[in-house]
Amino acid sequence: MNYQSPLRDFQFVLHELLQVPSMMQSCGQSEFDADTIDQVLTTAGQFASEVIAPLNAAGDQHGCIMAAPGVVQTPPGFKQAYDEYTRNGWHGLACSAEFGGQGFPSVVDSAVTEMFGGANMAWSAYPGMSHATYVNVAANGSAEQKALYLPKIASGEWAGTMCLTEPNAGTDLGLLRTRAVLQPDGTYSISGTKIFISGGEQDLTENVMHLVLARMPSSPQGVKGISLFIVPKFIPDASGGVGPRNAVTCGSIEHKLGIHGNSTCTMNFDGATGWLLGEAERGLAGMFVQMNYMRVLVGVTAIGVMEAAYQKALAYAKERLQGRVAGAKPSDQGADPIAGHADVRRMLLTQKANVEGARALALWTSQLSDLQRLHPDAAKRTEAGEMLGLLTPVVKALASDLGVESTLLAMQVFGGHGYIRENGVEQHLRDVRIIGLYEGTNGVQAMDLLGRKVLGDHGQRMNALLDMAGAFAETCTPRKAMREFAEPLAQLVADVRQLTAELVGASANDPHASGAAAVPYLRLVGHLALAWTWARMAEVSINKSESTDPIYASKIATARFYFQRILPQTAALRAEIRAGSSALMEPALDLL
Amino acid sequence: MNYQSPLRDFQFVLHELLQVPSMMQSCGQSEFDADTIDQVLTTAGQFASEVIAPLNAAGDQHGCIMAAPGVVQTPPGFKQAYDEYTRNGWHGLACSAEFGGQGFPSVVDSAVTEMFGGANMAWSAYPGMSHATYVNVAANGSAEQKALYLPKIASGEWAGTMCLTEPNAGTDLGLLRTRAVLQPDGTYSISGTKIFISGGEQDLTENVMHLVLARMPSSPQGVKGISLFIVPKFIPDASGGVGPRNAVTCGSIEHKLGIHGNSTCTMNFDGATGWLLGEAERGLAGMFVQMNYMRVLVGVTAIGVMEAAYQKALAYAKERLQGRVAGAKPSDQGADPIAGHADVRRMLLTQKANVEGARALALWTSQLSDLQRLHPDAAKRTEAGEMLGLLTPVVKALASDLGVESTLLAMQVFGGHGYIRENGVEQHLRDVRIIGLYEGTNGVQAMDLLGRKVLGDHGQRMNALLDMAGAFAETCTPRKAMREFAEPLAQLVADVRQLTAELVGASANDPHASGAAAVPYLRLVGHLALAWTWARMAEVSINKSESTDPIYASKIATARFYFQRILPQTAALRAEIRAGSSALMEPALDLL
Repeated sequence: MNYQSPLRDFQFVLHELLQVPSMMQSCGQSEFDADTIDQVLTTAGQFASEVIAPLNAAGDQHGCIMAAPGVVQTPPGFKQAYDEYTRNGWHGLACSAEFGGQGFPSVVDSAVTEMFGGANMAWSAYPGMSHATYVNVAANGSAEQKALYLPKIASGEWAGTMCLTEPNAGTDLGLLRTRAVLQPDGTYSISGTKIFISGGEQDLTENVMHLVLARMPSSPQGVKGISLFIVPKFIPDASGGVGPRNAVTCGSIEHKLGIHGNSTCTMNFDGATGWLLGEAERGLAGMFVQMNYMRVLVGVTAIGVMEAAYQKALAYAKERLQGRVAGAKPSDQGADPIAGHADVRRMLLTQKANVEGARALALWTSQLSDLQRLHPDAAKRTEAGEMLGLLTPVVKALASDLGVESTLLAMQVFGGHGYIRENGVEQHLRDVRIIGLYEGTNGVQAMDLLGRKVLGDHGQRMNALLDMAGAFAETCTPRKAMREFAEPLAQLVADVRQLTAELVGASANDPHASGAAAVPYLRLVGHLALAWTWARMAEVSINKSESTDPIYASKIATARFYFQRILPQTAALRAEIRAGSSALMEPALDLL
Repeated sequence: MNYQSPLRDFQFVLHELLQVPSMMQSCGQSEFDADTIDQVLTTAGQFASEVIAPLNAAGDQHGCIMAAPGVVQTPPGFKQAYDEYTRNGWHGLACSAEFGGQGFPSVVDSAVTEMFGGANMAWSAYPGMSHATYVNVAANGSAEQKALYLPKIASGEWAGTMCLTEPNAGTDLGLLRTRAVLQPDGTYSISGTKIFISGGEQDLTENVMHLVLARMPSSPQGVKGISLFIVPKFIPDASGGVGPRNAVTCGSIEHKLGIHGNSTCTMNFDGATGWLLGEAERGLAGMFVQMNYMRVLVGVTAIGVMEAAYQKALAYAKERLQGRVAGAKPSDQGADPIAGHADVRRMLLTQKANVEGARALALWTSQLSDLQRLHPDAAKRTEAGEMLGLLTPVVKALASDLGVESTLLAMQVFGGHGYIRENGVEQHLRDVRIIGLYEGTNGVQAMDLLGRKVLGDHGQRMNALLDMAGAFAETCTPRKAMREFAEPLAQLVADVRQLTAELVGASANDPHASGAAAVPYLRLVGHLALAWTWARMAEVSINKSESTDPIYASKIATARFYFQRILPQTAALRAEIRAGSSALMEPALDLL
């Protein structure tokens, strides 16, 4: 079965939970009304199901091929689908009208991205990465650079990549060795090797704009000496066409666990011509605009993959007949659908809670980036930006971890059949596994959250977020139907507040306190965000208790499942955080 | 890097924790002394590292091939390694001397099996499955069947398979359709299709003994109508050689997530000649002797894979230089080994605690099967058998779940490099994932534990186990150095006792109570068993506090890590169990 867009759930989150149309109206963009958004969602869902989902399994099987030195072939059908995507104008969905785009808000772009990622993660990573480079150049580029490159990205004629990692510089980009030497004409000669470059070479576009981190000879060692450069595959000519080939080539492509249809390239820069993008020696900060965008994007993609896996597991559980459901009337088929068994329901509801909770959280996070950009009130823009900063690493790490958990459960629902390639569910595990590793490992996300964003201001921003969640819980508590959600949420807010204060204290004395706590702390904050989101969704649904639309009963049931059977994980996380660093740091290395 | 046998840890568990040599002596088998066991462990470790580990990645890459209709080729080198294994007599390690074996106890066999599984899981599953059929025929066969088949299995000349699953009958074997029709000569004509048959066809042995579940025309529907048959690939001739080809053929081999080097076959029985094994219509009970053996065996294999993944992750973490360790002296290499970072240590210590805890638990469980068989005191044999019954599903499900968790963490330590096939760690995830799915899914294990073994006798056997764990905790508590382990263990014993009583009560009124609780209950009992095991290992190590052997300090540090940072997961499990079945069962199917 192919991926189907969860259209109704997108509508619930965008229109009913986040009230995107009225939010956009208050931001002066009333053209993005509910009908317009629905039309985009519907069309995107069709493209996802009909055009790219059918290429997913075959793309995995075929993979990318190095057809000749430096020449990469994407799987059969990828180029045609890319061309159709281009003709339909999808590249420009969230690009500015100034550069030929349609200017849709990020929250709609994220919903569309989730569908494409769920239908075919490997394929969708090509336009996804390109759009991330659009975000970068839009933020950091000169007027000329924007005028030259952005229309090409927005139209899909050219693609973009980010070139950060080197063999010896991954998490620690301060170690990078790629050199950029100023030339008399003001360009730079770029030399070095970059690895793990997604879409570094492909057969989809006539040109590729590589965004490359490199160091000038005069720059200091470490992260402070890094600058950012645009290195096009073909040097653009005066009319915006492609000129001579630049000295950047793909040396090899990686063999990977998953996303076989997406080329992961080693790129060799041999005195390639590059142009400084943004300020010299501010390259890492410049790249972080794109990186933060990417972190939400890849989290959203994980949600799409979870959705695809859940759809398969649910369909299988409804049709697979094994065993008798306890207490049920005997069927005449000799066995009942496994979806009736309590333990299978546990696995299905966990996946449902994971995907719907993460979706609402990620779309809310995307909405914060719209508010940060568009809200008429400067204080609201600042507040949205601070919340966005906190939630970005949470969305990335939480969604990718839940993505692994959910796809493992989807396989488990299939039993032994889940291990068989033809059933398609094991591919989802292989694909989604990368998301916890790239764009900063999930450990890096956790350090970003706890080390930089929470301890960095002694918990001030986090306490502001907790205040909002706590205020929501307080307003709901008097309402009887909301009590089962509001009370545990209020307790969790208090717990996280207390733990945050403890960590602020501990980190003053123990250099390892934040590293030891970071991963469980991010997960704990993730549960806070999910619990808050589920309580909000329950409230929306309780308010619709007279509707016959089954989504409201479904949301309340799933919220209840989340609060009763998943949220208790926070008890373990609190204990793990409070254990501190001693059990981690005391054993000498040779005892490991 | 190739797998290295963790010889010192095996010695610690076998000699110091479980005191296998003196146990064997008290069972009248003093020939299995420490030196003899060490010699087996050393030789097996060499074979694992030098012969089969080098075939692991290539076997994964190459996979099994259907060279002609019905003809399966294993990967290059597999046959040569199999022949060397045969020449070295490994097939007979745990077989009875009566049939040409060496009669080693199960606990030693499990240690050896772990090594072979860690070095090359796909390869080791061929002899592993054969030995499981040995166990079956030894338990259920007639004297003639034993005399005919067991020496052939013990020598490795012939292999064996178990043929249970059919397209419509997996967990629910009562649905199976394979027919067995009595022939005038007393044999049976077997017709039907079996799927997921490991080693169903291969190029390693001259003959294969298939053990097949089928139904006679006169037998009732459901599990009570199932009988067990021996169906050899070639009919044995009078002199023990191979006679005519039987009507059983491999129709296809599966494409799978992992264990590519192990053939997973669809087997077609077209009026094949079979011999009844054991009593008619008692086939499922007969097969369960083998199944229970297999469950511990595959759990042990998961531990081997965890060990292999941990070795890779640890070596990488010691050599990969990224970032500065907080509070450490600056190194002159520009960065420190990532093994110094608190969060990387969290991942390494989690793997270490998983593998060493699961190993000790699984070997103890194997020792129980030796005690059940050999102990001179009938009461001790019964007690060992009851403990073995409880722990068998725990070892299978816990070790396979920890196997997935550990291999995911090993990949995470590698960062993006963990996703690349050449680094070898992603294969461990793909391989180990099957263990939670086969030999009864982990959900089936959980129902076996809670539904059959705990609720089946109203918690009596479980309370006996809890009494033993509680008594151990009590004797340790007065000792100051043991208090950090003994006190939480005593608390956990009390918690599990209370929860078990609650579940006995709940299941009397709610048909879904056990299904809703089973998986978290198994995990909770798993933690009880691990905590008990870690406390015992800590006690052994504290008693050696004057030794300079670093293993004792390592065990105490790892036990401390387990108790401080992993055991708190039990709080979440208790809450999940107490949530009951309502959140699972109330939502109508169309709300999922």
